[in-house]
Amino acid sequence: MVGGGRDAFIGAVHRHAMALDGRYELVAGALSSTPEKALASGRDLGLAEDRIHADWHALLADELKRPAGERIDLLVIVTPNHLHHEVALAFIDAGFHVACDKPLVHSSAQAEELAARVAARGTAFAVTYNYSGYPMVREARELVRAGAIGKVRKVIVEYHQGWLAGALEQSSNKQSSWRADPTQSGPGGALGDIGTHAENLLSTVTGLAIEQLCAELSSFGPGRLLDDDASVLLRLSGGARGVLLASQMAVGHENDLRLRVFGERGSLDWRQEDPNVLMHLPLDAAPRRLTRGSAGLSESARRGCRLPPGHPEGFIEAFANIYTELAADLQAGTRTGDYPRVTDGARGVRFVERAVASQGQWIAF
Amino acid sequence: MVGGGRDAFIGAVHRHAMALDGRYELVAGALSSTPEKALASGRDLGLAEDRIHADWHALLADELKRPAGERIDLLVIVTPNHLHHEVALAFIDAGFHVACDKPLVHSSAQAEELAARVAARGTAFAVTYNYSGYPMVREARELVRAGAIGKVRKVIVEYHQGWLAGALEQSSNKQSSWRADPTQSGPGGALGDIGTHAENLLSTVTGLAIEQLCAELSSFGPGRLLDDDASVLLRLSGGARGVLLASQMAVGHENDLRLRVFGERGSLDWRQEDPNVLMHLPLDAAPRRLTRGSAGLSESARRGCRLPPGHPEGFIEAFANIYTELAADLQAGTRTGDYPRVTDGARGVRFVERAVASQGQWIAF
Amino acid sequence: MVGGGRDAFIGAVHRHAMALDGRYELVAGALSSTPEKALASGRDLGLAEDRIHADWHALLADELKRPAGERIDLLVIVTPNHLHHEVALAFIDAGFHVACDKPLVHSSAQAEELAARVAARGTAFAVTYNYSGYPMVREARELVRAGAIGKVRKVIVEYHQGWLAGALEQSSNKQSSWRADPTQSGPGGALGDIGTHAENLLSTVTGLAIEQLCAELSSFGPGRLLDDDASVLLRLSGGARGVLLASQMAVGHENDLRLRVFGERGSLDWRQEDPNVLMHLPLDAAPRRLTRGSAGLSESARRGCRLPPGHPEGFIEAFANIYTELAADLQAGTRTGDYPRVTDGARGVRFVERAVASQGQWIAF
Amino acid sequence: MVGGGRDAFIGAVHRHAMALDGRYELVAGALSSTPEKALASGRDLGLAEDRIHADWHALLADELKRPAGERIDLLVIVTPNHLHHEVALAFIDAGFHVACDKPLVHSSAQAEELAARVAARGTAFAVTYNYSGYPMVREARELVRAGAIGKVRKVIVEYHQGWLAGALEQSSNKQSSWRADPTQSGPGGALGDIGTHAENLLSTVTGLAIEQLCAELSSFGPGRLLDDDASVLLRLSGGARGVLLASQMAVGHENDLRLRVFGERGSLDWRQEDPNVLMHLPLDAAPRRLTRGSAGLSESARRGCRLPPGHPEGFIEAFANIYTELAADLQAGTRTGDYPRVTDGARGVRFVERAVASQGQWIAF
Repeated sequence: MVGGGRDAFIGAVHRHAMALDGRYELVAGALSSTPEKALASGRDLGLAEDRIHADWHALLADELKRPAGERIDLLVIVTPNHLHHEVALAFIDAGFHVACDKPLVHSSAQAEELAARVAARGTAFAVTYNYSGYPMVREARELVRAGAIGKVRKVIVEYHQGWLAGALEQSSNKQSSWRADPTQSGPGGALGDIGTHAENLLSTVTGLAIEQLCAELSSFGPGRLLDDDASVLLRLSGGARGVLLASQMAVGHENDLRLRVFGERGSLDWRQEDPNVLMHLPLDAAPRRLTRGSAGLSESARRGCRLPPGHPEGFIEAFANIYTELAADLQAGTRTGDYPRVTDGARGVRFVERAVASQGQWIAF
Repeated sequence: MVGGGRDAFIGAVHRHAMALDGRYELVAGALSSTPEKALASGRDLGLAEDRIHADWHALLADELKRPAGERIDLLVIVTPNHLHHEVALAFIDAGFHVACDKPLVHSSAQAEELAARVAARGTAFAVTYNYSGYPMVREARELVRAGAIGKVRKVIVEYHQGWLAGALEQSSNKQSSWRADPTQSGPGGALGDIGTHAENLLSTVTGLAIEQLCAELSSFGPGRLLDDDASVLLRLSGGARGVLLASQMAVGHENDLRLRVFGERGSLDWRQEDPNVLMHLPLDAAPRRLTRGSAGLSESARRGCRLPPGHPEGFIEAFANIYTELAADLQAGTRTGDYPRVTDGARGVRFVERAVASQGQWIAF
Repeated sequence: MVGGGRDAFIGAVHRHAMALDGRYELVAGALSSTPEKALASGRDLGLAEDRIHADWHALLADELKRPAGERIDLLVIVTPNHLHHEVALAFIDAGFHVACDKPLVHSSAQAEELAARVAARGTAFAVTYNYSGYPMVREARELVRAGAIGKVRKVIVEYHQGWLAGALEQSSNKQSSWRADPTQSGPGGALGDIGTHAENLLSTVTGLAIEQLCAELSSFGPGRLLDDDASVLLRLSGGARGVLLASQMAVGHENDLRLRVFGERGSLDWRQEDPNVLMHLPLDAAPRRLTRGSAGLSESARRGCRLPPGHPEGFIEAFANIYTELAADLQAGTRTGDYPRVTDGARGVRFVERAVASQGQWIAF
Repeated sequence: MVGGGRDAFIGAVHRHAMALDGRYELVAGALSSTPEKALASGRDLGLAEDRIHADWHALLADELKRPAGERIDLLVIVTPNHLHHEVALAFIDAGFHVACDKPLVHSSAQAEELAARVAARGTAFAVTYNYSGYPMVREARELVRAGAIGKVRKVIVEYHQGWLAGALEQSSNKQSSWRADPTQSGPGGALGDIGTHAENLLSTVTGLAIEQLCAELSSFGPGRLLDDDASVLLRLSGGARGVLLASQMAVGHENDLRLRVFGERGSLDWRQEDPNVLMHLPLDAAPRRLTRGSAGLSESARRGCRLPPGHPEGFIEAFANIYTELAADLQAGTRTGDYPRVTDGARGVRFVERAVASQGQWIAF
């Protein structure tokens, strides 16, 4: 693992997710931006002293010195965004499989470079768009694929958070400070942090391509350099229309991600804060409340369930589904698992890039 | 009443709303588009034979022949939209007070003419934007006015229906056939029928003006001439941003109107299908579930309540609140009631007009 | 109308309900317990001076003096409970049709007397168990009747309010003071005021008879003479079991009436505070969200709807359904309307009586 | 681990829960009732061959042969109920710490024996009443303790499932077959399986003692030997009243556990299927929606959170909280962790026993 040491948020989530199904063991790391903190963080997590490294260069060098059978099976990148590119590139080139947080990198050029390198080396590469791991998101995707709601006409995806309603980045909050800094976070603020999740959810579930977009970005937080609010109109393949809303200044909203898909013969409605339920509204019958774990779900959704219906599975479980599918691929040497790839990550980067470029006008994707 | 006879939908709703508080009695009407149906409809409603008229000209002529004390106190216009303008104009000119359904008329030019005439004659004129009559919508407006959520930053208003997902207007459904015909309905489809309600809700609650808009209109229903889906980005006064969504092809959605307002210090969330509740999400405290009829509401909201909390009041009650406020004005000769005016109606017409003109580009309102 | 004057609560609700569909006109009344207030109340409501009476004796005497065609068609009794019996009896004996609020009377003996007299005279008699007028309650009843959930195994009905959590009856609140006084309210507190509604809902929807009950009654309010909390176990006909909970000290609960029915092949769930929805949980399929006004409802439910789905109808509309069904009976001279009868009222009185007698032990109903 | 091999359900849940926070490693087991299956199950889980045992006797013997530093730190018992007693007793006597599923044992005599032995040996003993591990259940308990809702007047706890609506135990479903067999399951059916969870939730959150109970037990499933439905009235310490409902024939209900507490100055409402939310209804203010992870929660609730608000944590996370608190005790040699003890387990056993003994009458607890 690179990143994810003391004071980090998402690294611990990755570790819980990896632990849940017993498929991973954390054995080595360069966990923080200073050698001291990296050391302390490694000890916190019980790593062997010789596998705690001051930075990712040392980690890579050390791994390459080891015999193949003693090397890490997977590198997990959970640093601030600006480091994703160089770290990923170096490890891919060295033949390592990689899991990387989102947004993947800062620019489409970087993303395409990564994608090309992954394709060339044949390594596995997962982007942790964790929301796609929820069983009922998978079910939504399968229902669309199976034609249960007919041709998709419109998609609304919205992601509301309120934690940046004030100027949190001017406090000592580490999560907000790097995210608010374009050199670390990339060109998108809310757009990069949560808009990419929304884009991924829309693309994953509907299978439609964004052809054009018109994005209105705003910064409401005092002195904020990046957007904290985005409203984006989309024209999707096949004539469908889309609306993507992402905001981090929506006071009182915690992690309010919702996807609605309207088709010719039905609609779907899923909310991340009540993730075990998917509403299916058919054309000529009463709305159906589909639940995780219940009978009649697709194989794909069922595979992501550990518990019977009514026993809530949450964020970590969905995250773990990404890792567990990746583990199966790593173990079998396949590349068929149900998890987001480097190309999904690249599309998210492009989404941010084009939304920033739009400046309120329709432009091609 | 002009319009609202057999086969009509909204006329009966107006009558229920007028009846509820015992402030109105229906005494005369030109209720349908053919003399036969107008007569049958008048008898259905127990009107005196000499006050059942074949058309509005006859109604007006008859009223003017009567001594002042025996005339109607109010004319209610519930015809298809294309008749609103001429009927309203004629009755205003004759000095009658008018309640008219929305969208008010087909064009801003017509709307401004009406507004000017109302101003000149000093008559009362209510536009039945009934959703503004819900007590918890009033409460939202009062909270915004009182600064409870601070400066408004963003507003999202959405109105989803599914009844036009197919090509209902090609069947014999009367409601859909005139609404789908631009010569009767005006330039807006979903935009005029429900988008105007959404605009009114946004404007009423926030008090902000639309300065610019960018509207994406679509027609998904086969052979449909008017929009059945609209996604509109808004730039509002004071730097606020807005999103207005209206769709009548959202399968499974009944009358799903929702307003969210995000301010610097709090958010509000109201849903028409659960209208007795208003969620208030303050900046630094737990979300509060405010309910109609409960202690602590504004005078304005309380005045719209007939029942204690927990005893649901609905659509007709909200509609009745418009009529009851108007009744008070008529009785007292005042113009201070809490109901939408001809100028609100005119703004809605302008909204449709500008959204149609936008063609996906930002234009001034 | 007898009762329902100034300071009364439920009288106004009855008037709204009667007004809604335009089937009633209030023409005469003895509206309050003192002649002065009765007069003022009658004038408030615009009654003719000669039809405002100081008490019900005067009202009855005056009616009997009038020619048959000028008499009231229906007497509505909305006094405190202790007056129901004598007023109802006098008017029935005089041949008038009656609508009476619940609980019907104080004792089973009184109730049976009333029921016998109604049967003998053949007059119409409605008990305003208003919750039975909700379309989705009717739908629940029809689903049970049609066998949609199979044989009923268990019923849970609960009614929680919080307004008597303190000692409101020791303040000047008129609603609580008479309800807290056994001589006016009868032997039941929460049991009579809301427990009877719960009993009626259970009996109406399931059609099952209470065979035995075991009731635990409590008084938590300081100095309270009657129960403010009741938990009752029921043994129902056909081997079904029941639980009935009623409380008026459930802080924060407004009018939280809920009915659940569990059958061999499905369950039903209805909540009064969200009355337009009925959840139907079939044995081997996803839960279905049934909504008022939507396609596929029973004729009985549809007949109680004024508006399309998604346009909420509430408490007054349900109440009005009782009155409108009664109006049809009065007009047609039939006794087939869908509204609660004197026998339903009598069963409710018996329920209170037996629950009080139970003293925590199982006794026959 | 004893039990929890192939075909078992709850063993896997324990393993996920133990894995989540990285505090446990499964090293030895007697995982199934036949030697063959025990071996296969041990290999499935990657246990060393010399630590896979055919039965718990072999496991215990092997452990005792190992040097203290190489022994297991904790024995986890996840067998059918009838084995809990002898296994637990043997390991306690040998000085091992134990985590055991519920219901603890079959009889109060057994339970008291266990409790006495734990007290005598000073070992740690956790009963996995997992619902008590939910942060918002802890918050409810802390709010009651802090007096936020005043003196508790009434508690309603209900637990509805539908999976035994038919005669599942007559199929090959392993979970239902042993639970339906009194010799394996104990004297309670739904009462033991889920009623004990309900009892624990009530007791944990309110801190009140059951003084008397009156239980109505039913068996609706064809040929069922144990109760599948229980309705229990409770008299609690301090004059409070309680209602406990547990049913496994409530068609369409998945794992619908809900706790409501009504106090003099407020109410609480928590639902297991939406476990990240606790509604707090104060006496004189709007209901507050408290969420897991949000600011202002008690230290006890916060300690059970891994993620920020809006990132749902579920069943496994709550379960893991039990294990993680136990781990802290084991590591520190303390007995202060926030998890249910053998005495809580014993109280649950007594609850089943007394409810069965009640036969519909009030009896002392």
